[in-house]
Amino acid sequence: MALRFVERAAEAHDFPLTIRHLLDTSLVTAADQEIVYRDEVRITYRTFHERLGRLASALTALGAAEGMTIGVLDWDSHRYLECYFAIPMIGAVLQTVNVRLPPAQVAETINRAGAEILLVHRDFLPLVEALRGALPNVRAIVALMDGDAAPPDYAAGEYERLLQDADPDFEFRDFDENAMATLFFTTGTTGSPKAVCFTHRQIVLHAIVANGPFGGLHSRGFGADDVYMPLTPMFHVHAWGMPYVATMLGVKQVYAGRYDPDTILDLRAREGVTFSHCVPTILQMVLAAADRRGADLAGWLMTIGGSALTQALCREGRRRGMELVSGYGMSETAPLLTVSRPRREGGSDEVEALTMAGVPVPLVSVRVVDETMRDVPADGVSRGELVIRAPWLTGCYVGDTRASDALWRGGWLHTQDVATLNREGYVQIRDRLKDVIKTGGEWLCSVTLEDMIADLPGIEQVAVIGVPHPHWGERPLGVVVAVAGHTVTLEQVNQRLDSAIASGEVSRYARLESLELVETMPKTSVGKVDKKALRALYAAPPVASA
Amino acid sequence: MALRFVERAAEAHDFPLTIRHLLDTSLVTAADQEIVYRDEVRITYRTFHERLGRLASALTALGAAEGMTIGVLDWDSHRYLECYFAIPMIGAVLQTVNVRLPPAQVAETINRAGAEILLVHRDFLPLVEALRGALPNVRAIVALMDGDAAPPDYAAGEYERLLQDADPDFEFRDFDENAMATLFFTTGTTGSPKAVCFTHRQIVLHAIVANGPFGGLHSRGFGADDVYMPLTPMFHVHAWGMPYVATMLGVKQVYAGRYDPDTILDLRAREGVTFSHCVPTILQMVLAAADRRGADLAGWLMTIGGSALTQALCREGRRRGMELVSGYGMSETAPLLTVSRPRREGGSDEVEALTMAGVPVPLVSVRVVDETMRDVPADGVSRGELVIRAPWLTGCYVGDTRASDALWRGGWLHTQDVATLNREGYVQIRDRLKDVIKTGGEWLCSVTLEDMIADLPGIEQVAVIGVPHPHWGERPLGVVVAVAGHTVTLEQVNQRLDSAIASGEVSRYARLESLELVETMPKTSVGKVDKKALRALYAAPPVASA
Repeated sequence: MALRFVERAAEAHDFPLTIRHLLDTSLVTAADQEIVYRDEVRITYRTFHERLGRLASALTALGAAEGMTIGVLDWDSHRYLECYFAIPMIGAVLQTVNVRLPPAQVAETINRAGAEILLVHRDFLPLVEALRGALPNVRAIVALMDGDAAPPDYAAGEYERLLQDADPDFEFRDFDENAMATLFFTTGTTGSPKAVCFTHRQIVLHAIVANGPFGGLHSRGFGADDVYMPLTPMFHVHAWGMPYVATMLGVKQVYAGRYDPDTILDLRAREGVTFSHCVPTILQMVLAAADRRGADLAGWLMTIGGSALTQALCREGRRRGMELVSGYGMSETAPLLTVSRPRREGGSDEVEALTMAGVPVPLVSVRVVDETMRDVPADGVSRGELVIRAPWLTGCYVGDTRASDALWRGGWLHTQDVATLNREGYVQIRDRLKDVIKTGGEWLCSVTLEDMIADLPGIEQVAVIGVPHPHWGERPLGVVVAVAGHTVTLEQVNQRLDSAIASGEVSRYARLESLELVETMPKTSVGKVDKKALRALYAAPPVASA
Repeated sequence: MALRFVERAAEAHDFPLTIRHLLDTSLVTAADQEIVYRDEVRITYRTFHERLGRLASALTALGAAEGMTIGVLDWDSHRYLECYFAIPMIGAVLQTVNVRLPPAQVAETINRAGAEILLVHRDFLPLVEALRGALPNVRAIVALMDGDAAPPDYAAGEYERLLQDADPDFEFRDFDENAMATLFFTTGTTGSPKAVCFTHRQIVLHAIVANGPFGGLHSRGFGADDVYMPLTPMFHVHAWGMPYVATMLGVKQVYAGRYDPDTILDLRAREGVTFSHCVPTILQMVLAAADRRGADLAGWLMTIGGSALTQALCREGRRRGMELVSGYGMSETAPLLTVSRPRREGGSDEVEALTMAGVPVPLVSVRVVDETMRDVPADGVSRGELVIRAPWLTGCYVGDTRASDALWRGGWLHTQDVATLNREGYVQIRDRLKDVIKTGGEWLCSVTLEDMIADLPGIEQVAVIGVPHPHWGERPLGVVVAVAGHTVTLEQVNQRLDSAIASGEVSRYARLESLELVETMPKTSVGKVDKKALRALYAAPPVASA
């Protein structure tokens, strides 16, 4: 026999999961609700929807068409939100250009994406002007001036004026939900940027599932009474997809432009922001500014991702009345995979649970596996690589078959993160796979060793990497910046590690092989310790005896 | 140009929305969580999953195959939940047989569905045995004995023993998400039952969207700490789809078997039930039993649907510490369309808002339209028919093209409900379309007139129907059961209506044309006033002058 299907009222039943349908509800429930951009713009959802039509008309007049890539270089704004919708809604592909990359990489990503139209905030016009000769595909530049200044001569027009002159009655049509909607480049610490892409179906599924853990009819959660302000840049993984969720729910939205702690706190107070998300660095910045100003943060729910939320930072936020939860995901995963929650069974520390990566959201399958793809025990201790399946993961790195195959080895997306899983499904990220030290058949977590060593007096900063060893595979090497006037020895460090070995906290392989004292630690463009550079310096592989 | 698609890592990226994936998360996060059936069974999710494999193996051994319809006649149970999953997961179609229909209709629905295997609770074995000669397609009957009693001779086996003997390692495969998963019959007050059906994709989308309004990381909502017990029979629109949501979330689930107020209250207390849903009649039954027993109901969130939650009943529940919300939907809509919520802008009565049908959930488009499909104003007053689009509506009435075309006229699903919509998207159901009285070019709401008339002294029960009128189209006629010893006149009734007309509450056409005093009101099988019978008695159309 065969599966059973029925004749269907085609027009009625066929409901593609295209991004335009995220608007279906909020235009009815929240037409008068507001979308706010700094001090500058305040529009209703009704106007927002009309502006989507105008933007689609204006882009079409500039040559936009189905399948074309259109790039955006802007700070967080209502305009960016309009691009999140209008560009995919005409069947084009939104490239959210990472404006923090070095200029040459900005050009590289625009060219590799094949972007033909760019929307550029005035702050990035000098960058784009300098790159213009190196952007052969770009046929039109729209300037986003944030005020009355005239756009440069080479621009096809200014955003607001183009919208004013455009027809609001653009007829958006439905199409295949598997059409590409967005594309952007990951900024890994290794190699050149890789392009990930997401379809309409994936973005819609991500939005409705991401609404689940934050949803709620009453009080806390993310619902009609919330006021939403992203504090994750909109060029970064669709600002974690939450602007799509917020628009779908019809909540008030606030966009802060270029991040500045005073603007953020002003908007938070004036607009009554209750729901945000950011990386720990932004939270620290907000907390420091709030202390300086004596600002009240009570009732602000913040989801933290990007890097681990430390228990100390979580407690700091909670002391000020904030609610903090962790989320985990990556560019390749749209991004949401897990969200933290208090432990089901009492007794354990709530902060500890909230600072874990969390439990998988619906439709997300997680496994923690060894190198042969066998599951390690779900005991909260055994480590392995976290691999994932879900309906919203990038299908490939665009144009890079080899990297795509590696990403999807064995039919699971490889996160390159070393994690543990426990019996209640709590995922805890322990390390980046490439930062793990494989010694004597065991995995040493570099982060664990770094935390232990950082406790010693006289240490300002520490990194631990694996260096090749003919017998043990790898052995750990420490790189330390000492506090001025202090010195640190290998013996002191290994004494500390010996006591951890004695108490069973780490394996006996944890003793460092050697220690390097340095003046400054090499950093990546986003301020993380550059372990790739450290490996190049200290862990060059033995010369092959070929 | 054309839409852009990318080469994809097929095995990885193609993630069909099939029902089996609702299990992906909870098997990791809630393997030790419990599913409870009365006093009889207590299994973990791990065992539940193993039993799905056993059930699939056992059914396959009985001849089950892709595309086959398999019918279930059971009270609410863990077995029914197993059938919700295992039957669609093997590619078969689950028929949730409505056991409240008259025997001849039970046979008719089983035959029209083409069910070849039936799973039958011992309480329904006499029914099925009596019907066996009239069920030519049925090749195997599995008895669900709830204990040690032997199954009847004609049964292929007993559920628990079949599972015991079956292989737990059934290999479920993925397939087209548009395959039919479930099928059941609506029990409208008119005509013979109509079959609606839902696909895997529809059920999964319904589950993840339905999680949104009830979801929540913290405290209230529907989350990991909740304990779920449906009080809407599982044969009725997948118990509103909430067993799928509960299983996806990995919450503790409690199944009450045949509804009995004492069992329900015992289970509520013993298992700590916090989240349920039911029709108002069941809520009334629970409240009465709780009063009798002095039972505590605090902290129990109940979603009410099926019929309107009256403000009085809502207040009664709230006084006992329950939280009450309304939901609205129908068999054709899987069912969830709207959920009530407190008003965004304060000042209005919370109970009033909570007893409305509510606001549409994400991806649901609602319109209130006149007979030419033009939208009536969203002013909370203007009435029209509620029409719907959403990704989980039945595509047709199976095998009934004419009814399907009428259901989907103009590309929107016609609810046959008369509603109003306001500027915040609150839907309020005012009447059934066929109960509306169309007079002088206006719609009179029969329910509104009935409520006004019921206020008069001496009235036990009242129904208002439209009777044909050569000039006005229709005119209202009242049918009244008077309290013993009282009488009621047309003049008394019209005096009451005149004052409502004077104050603008109803149109001037509301005055009744005539009044019939009757001894008893005709009722349908489910206890509603049978307006079809009243129309046959009092509103026969004028004989055509052919």
